[in-house]
Amino acid sequence: MSLTPRIAIDAMGGDVGVRMMLAGAAMARHQHDGLRFLLVGDEGQIKAALENHPNLRAASDIIHTEEVVSGADKPSQALRKARGSSMGLAIDAVKRGAAGGAVSAGNTGALMAMAKVALRTMPGIDRPALAALLPTLGDNDVVMLDLGANTDCDANNLVQFAVMGAAYARTAMGLERPRVALLNIGTEELKGTDEIRDAAALLRDRAEGLPMRFAGFIEGDKLSRGDVDVIVHDGFAGNIALKTIEGTARFVTDLLRRAFTSSTRSKIGFLISRPATELLRHHLDPNNHNGAVFLGLNGVVLKSHGSADAKGVANCVHLCAELIEKDITRQVTEDLANFRGGTAA
Amino acid sequence: MSLTPRIAIDAMGGDVGVRMMLAGAAMARHQHDGLRFLLVGDEGQIKAALENHPNLRAASDIIHTEEVVSGADKPSQALRKARGSSMGLAIDAVKRGAAGGAVSAGNTGALMAMAKVALRTMPGIDRPALAALLPTLGDNDVVMLDLGANTDCDANNLVQFAVMGAAYARTAMGLERPRVALLNIGTEELKGTDEIRDAAALLRDRAEGLPMRFAGFIEGDKLSRGDVDVIVHDGFAGNIALKTIEGTARFVTDLLRRAFTSSTRSKIGFLISRPATELLRHHLDPNNHNGAVFLGLNGVVLKSHGSADAKGVANCVHLCAELIEKDITRQVTEDLANFRGGTAA
Repeated sequence: MSLTPRIAIDAMGGDVGVRMMLAGAAMARHQHDGLRFLLVGDEGQIKAALENHPNLRAASDIIHTEEVVSGADKPSQALRKARGSSMGLAIDAVKRGAAGGAVSAGNTGALMAMAKVALRTMPGIDRPALAALLPTLGDNDVVMLDLGANTDCDANNLVQFAVMGAAYARTAMGLERPRVALLNIGTEELKGTDEIRDAAALLRDRAEGLPMRFAGFIEGDKLSRGDVDVIVHDGFAGNIALKTIEGTARFVTDLLRRAFTSSTRSKIGFLISRPATELLRHHLDPNNHNGAVFLGLNGVVLKSHGSADAKGVANCVHLCAELIEKDITRQVTEDLANFRGGTAA
Repeated sequence: MSLTPRIAIDAMGGDVGVRMMLAGAAMARHQHDGLRFLLVGDEGQIKAALENHPNLRAASDIIHTEEVVSGADKPSQALRKARGSSMGLAIDAVKRGAAGGAVSAGNTGALMAMAKVALRTMPGIDRPALAALLPTLGDNDVVMLDLGANTDCDANNLVQFAVMGAAYARTAMGLERPRVALLNIGTEELKGTDEIRDAAALLRDRAEGLPMRFAGFIEGDKLSRGDVDVIVHDGFAGNIALKTIEGTARFVTDLLRRAFTSSTRSKIGFLISRPATELLRHHLDPNNHNGAVFLGLNGVVLKSHGSADAKGVANCVHLCAELIEKDITRQVTEDLANFRGGTAA
């Protein structure tokens, strides 16, 4: 693998449009010199968008296609047009080794299904997981997984997510032995579903031999505290938790805006403390944490949020480059092999 | 039932202590003239606490017991000491008709188990649900249920929760036809688990004949928007959502505090806009929404939050009085009968 990775960009997927995807890629290239790109999509639109980014143009090749996976396509429909679509060709570039990783802002379910078929899951992995970084009050972000479409997970799935999440935290955040917790409705051993309790028993038994520390159960009110580095859950609970975080952060900032505009006095106070509230805004801006990664696949595929701005896309592309350079795929494969090697079953 | 209800207070349950429970009851009586009380617990401690509240003392009788259900007791252990404990005797007072309702800040699982055994569930109800009110950006709070220990729920359970939640919203918030939604990981019909999709199909079919409107699925980022009046989920998803709301609100306000104390300038701005941030604090203070009610039981039992202050306890007692006066038990029973009456099955 090259030291200056090449990234396949699905230029057409998602609502953000070609211009935003390429503006993001261009911005990432400014931060990450030497990055090269395969831009996949309508050549005319891509060339038009590249006119504003000569730096990106010089580092890019174009793969032309007019076919696009839409947000409304079910994964099964997406699979039928896999080969020809911008999303499918971007993943195919990873499969062929023409790119070290792919970034798409398209339909998450379709991306997961197509990546799974093209790149295949790692040995022993039934389901890839989608992992994202969330801000905390601590020094580091926290890895949350699964945020994909795995609504029902058994104990083994959850344990695999834990091992993969820990490998991700080591790679992306440079932690030696990340603290891993299972999301649950209480911290006592007897709380929660059978799947969660069984996963905890397996991790308690087996985590010691691995580069991770099992921290037991964590409840919803502690997700952003920074007490742990990886939080594991099925795709249903993860979706509820992640969207509730988004909604509540917006709720509180909306209340704050209302409060600050409720009187002349508070408006003046707001203007004076503007640098402080800007800091808050920066910290809560989801664009600063954009980029969810599929773990458990033989290749690096990242999902950029459908409504990310150029800075958000740039963060996702930057994360993709970092994961390629640090060889996340090998890290995860090795950790899973070590985990299985130590299991009696 | 008397027009000035009598409420049984478990004076010993929870971490808050006798003094806080009685300070809350006294505060509620100031707002709600004519309320009477049965104070259940250690007579010596209760009498000592009553010295500060002559108004409450005049309206109260005491039921003495030294036995207390602890936070660590499992529901099965709690059931064994049910009869003699302050929690058990408070519920028993409701069963005997000596009180119109009971309030406890004790162990939620024990309270649910004891109330279920003593008061029995309504006809056709397998599991009582725990319902709480959450603040929104809209004019009204939103009812969330189940927040109890029903981690696995089938479609019928969820439908029963929907009917009971709508009855609660009509009674507590005076709405004619509350909008009811199911918490899910997407709004399309195909999203989510079988249980949720089946519950949606039943509600789509049958809600029209009832005093409620079925609003489909709602995602975690819309819980606090005020777009619906009742949000239905199993106890697992509800716990994750509710605790994530709590934790995220605290996370954002912690960030805000950090931001406001990050420079002299922002400190000055903060002092000037203090009335605004106090408004925010008031809106987010969980004490203003304290009081979760068990629905589906033949009697009114409310759970006060374990860490509520006197104002929080007062809100819970006040809510209990209101639900007794408006005869929530009859409302829920009738709605459930109407729903069953219209069901082919």
